[in-house]
Amino acid sequence: MGIVVQKYGGSSVADAAGIKRVAQRIVNTKKAGNDVVVVVSAMGDTTDELRDLAEEVSPLPPPRELDMLLTAGERISMALVAMAIAQLGHKAQSFTGSQAGVITTAEHGKAKIIDITPGRIQAAIDEGSIAIVAGFQGVSQDTKDVTTLGRGASDTTAVALAAALGADVCEIYSDVDGVFTADPRIVPTAKKLDSVSYEEMLEMAASGAKILHLRCVEYARRFNMPVHVRSSFSTKEGTWILPTPSENEATMEQAIISGVAHDRSEAKITVVGVPDKVGEAARIFEALADAGVNIDMVVQNISAAATGLTDISFTLPREDGQTAMGALAKVESQIGYEKLLFDDQIGKVSLIGAGMRSYPGVTAKFFASLASAGINIEMISTSEIRISVIVDSADVDNAVQATHTAFGLDADEVEAVVYGGTGR
Amino acid sequence: MGIVVQKYGGSSVADAAGIKRVAQRIVNTKKAGNDVVVVVSAMGDTTDELRDLAEEVSPLPPPRELDMLLTAGERISMALVAMAIAQLGHKAQSFTGSQAGVITTAEHGKAKIIDITPGRIQAAIDEGSIAIVAGFQGVSQDTKDVTTLGRGASDTTAVALAAALGADVCEIYSDVDGVFTADPRIVPTAKKLDSVSYEEMLEMAASGAKILHLRCVEYARRFNMPVHVRSSFSTKEGTWILPTPSENEATMEQAIISGVAHDRSEAKITVVGVPDKVGEAARIFEALADAGVNIDMVVQNISAAATGLTDISFTLPREDGQTAMGALAKVESQIGYEKLLFDDQIGKVSLIGAGMRSYPGVTAKFFASLASAGINIEMISTSEIRISVIVDSADVDNAVQATHTAFGLDADEVEAVVYGGTGR
Repeated sequence: MGIVVQKYGGSSVADAAGIKRVAQRIVNTKKAGNDVVVVVSAMGDTTDELRDLAEEVSPLPPPRELDMLLTAGERISMALVAMAIAQLGHKAQSFTGSQAGVITTAEHGKAKIIDITPGRIQAAIDEGSIAIVAGFQGVSQDTKDVTTLGRGASDTTAVALAAALGADVCEIYSDVDGVFTADPRIVPTAKKLDSVSYEEMLEMAASGAKILHLRCVEYARRFNMPVHVRSSFSTKEGTWILPTPSENEATMEQAIISGVAHDRSEAKITVVGVPDKVGEAARIFEALADAGVNIDMVVQNISAAATGLTDISFTLPREDGQTAMGALAKVESQIGYEKLLFDDQIGKVSLIGAGMRSYPGVTAKFFASLASAGINIEMISTSEIRISVIVDSADVDNAVQATHTAFGLDADEVEAVVYGGTGR
Repeated sequence: MGIVVQKYGGSSVADAAGIKRVAQRIVNTKKAGNDVVVVVSAMGDTTDELRDLAEEVSPLPPPRELDMLLTAGERISMALVAMAIAQLGHKAQSFTGSQAGVITTAEHGKAKIIDITPGRIQAAIDEGSIAIVAGFQGVSQDTKDVTTLGRGASDTTAVALAAALGADVCEIYSDVDGVFTADPRIVPTAKKLDSVSYEEMLEMAASGAKILHLRCVEYARRFNMPVHVRSSFSTKEGTWILPTPSENEATMEQAIISGVAHDRSEAKITVVGVPDKVGEAARIFEALADAGVNIDMVVQNISAAATGLTDISFTLPREDGQTAMGALAKVESQIGYEKLLFDDQIGKVSLIGAGMRSYPGVTAKFFASLASAGINIEMISTSEIRISVIVDSADVDNAVQATHTAFGLDADEVEAVVYGGTGR
């Protein structure tokens, strides 16, 4: 008998009706002969409501206390899910992050999982119970204080717990049917993927696809845990996230491109007229690192021979924009740049596919599709299985649609786009 | 520097404004040179709202899960109080019942405190923090599960914690000014008592005065912990609950009567025509005990010589009425009684005062005052410091007012009612 870990998001347990529906699905999984461990998020908007309450009391609450407050959210949902399962005649016990053995660092609000010691969960399973575990929370190794793992981290709890328990699969339930070739709100013909590799999913998560939390995919990849992303509102198969097929297993059916992701949450800063000397770029990025700013893409132009000056552009989370501009203004005299430009009207469009690494025409086709659509490319960044471009934010939808069509991803065509894998 | 334990009820922390007001009062106590430990209840109606949510999911939720759910209430209020204190520039840390070392039995929903091991609380105090502790909750010694102590038990948490920490005083804050000689809603001239003995407070709590939880007073008495009942909405002194003065300390100022309590939550059952033989009463109360029914007052009439039959009447919590009637109906053939009468239109009025034990006229004066008011007495029960009568529920207000006046408790007169204690 295998262990199935299921994670239900806030929209799946938003009210009593949702909780009963989820309980029925959990019981069905148990009846099918599995041991079931369930990770739940807080109901609907509970976490935001608790944050609002905190703000009424204190504009800058101590992080330890904010974590204590927010963890009430999953406590409520997990107890209700356990009650609903009991009402269906099955044994269920709920566990806080601490009780489930989710040991973390002490960084309140963004703690990292250090270890999972699921002794109580295993004991509950062994006695035939369904274990319901609070997502998003843990207990710090050093201070024994309650911690939270950061927004959306219930997915990470689920995958980490699945790995620690040696589960057969980790199912992530939400209100969408799976991973799509693009955001269906922008590309109505976007198609659900049957499967995608950890590496592709990582690139998608990093490129703005909100379907799974980046750290969750990293965890799944590290522990080789199969993840099944699916809807709690239907029984349809969703998308499997699996190891990359080995060269021998690569088949005719493997598509070049798995999808088009986009991200509107970034801004761009350009440092104009930087002396093109060794160490100048380092100084800029040291100043940003000291200010705690995370950088995404970086581009440095070739310097104009006449002036010996160059421009350095980078993207960063939009909310860090003012911090970064302030940090750079402080080092102006040391670096001696001419000026700073700030642009928050940008968007990132990324083409992702493990197949592209041995298919040379992909980049050219991507840029050609954008050109045909009349879209100007501001920055470019590539990895082995991803190409990202920065465009004007007004062009994002067009760019996603044009690329989706150019690569034959639209629903009726996708089966035809196959790639005869030859390895690389 | 002494330790002050303060307990704030749900009405004191009902919203952000209340929480800020409470935080200011806590900080004032700290600034006055005390170490402060605070016990909080859930905000306003949170506990009832969580119960309603549970009922939507399951009519009979597993007690372990109900406790897990309800404990979210204090988690929210304690974190918010800690935030509000931090906002005022003082260090504060919140602790769940489990973290505070409140070790209990495993009876979910009505767990008893076995021990308090307040190591983390003491450590927080030692480093200059104000400790905020969740009332009403603990962790079971055997199963390590989260438990609740039963409705209103935050008072008990506060007194038990005060005893374990060796506090100077336990202050119980609510929305009333202290303990009154009668319920001011019934007797507008009722007077706040400056002090009352543990024994009198116990009788008052057992007689329906809702100001303090019975178990809380028992705890205070056992550990000789001074309790100060006062309002969080004013800075006036409330009522001190203290040891009974020794005979030598008893002064001219000690009043005979400390107050009149009433209780409308009971019902009366009369078992008519019971054969007056050894063991019949035992059979009746065994049947009730087996059904888990708690009995309050019991009266057995002298049997009529002609028939050899007697009537047995007792009072019990009204909500146990149907259970008790069912249990008695089942043993009808064994006992051979004639019929059962059920009356839920009753009320209990109690006169309480440590002084009455050496003052013989109290009972006579009590009954005379009820007679003058035209009130019929249905049952009588006495202890050394209490006389209780059962009357028609419609007569309760009249009975309380008449008794309050007869014993000179009305506000302008109370100072005149003194008793020259001679011991007994």
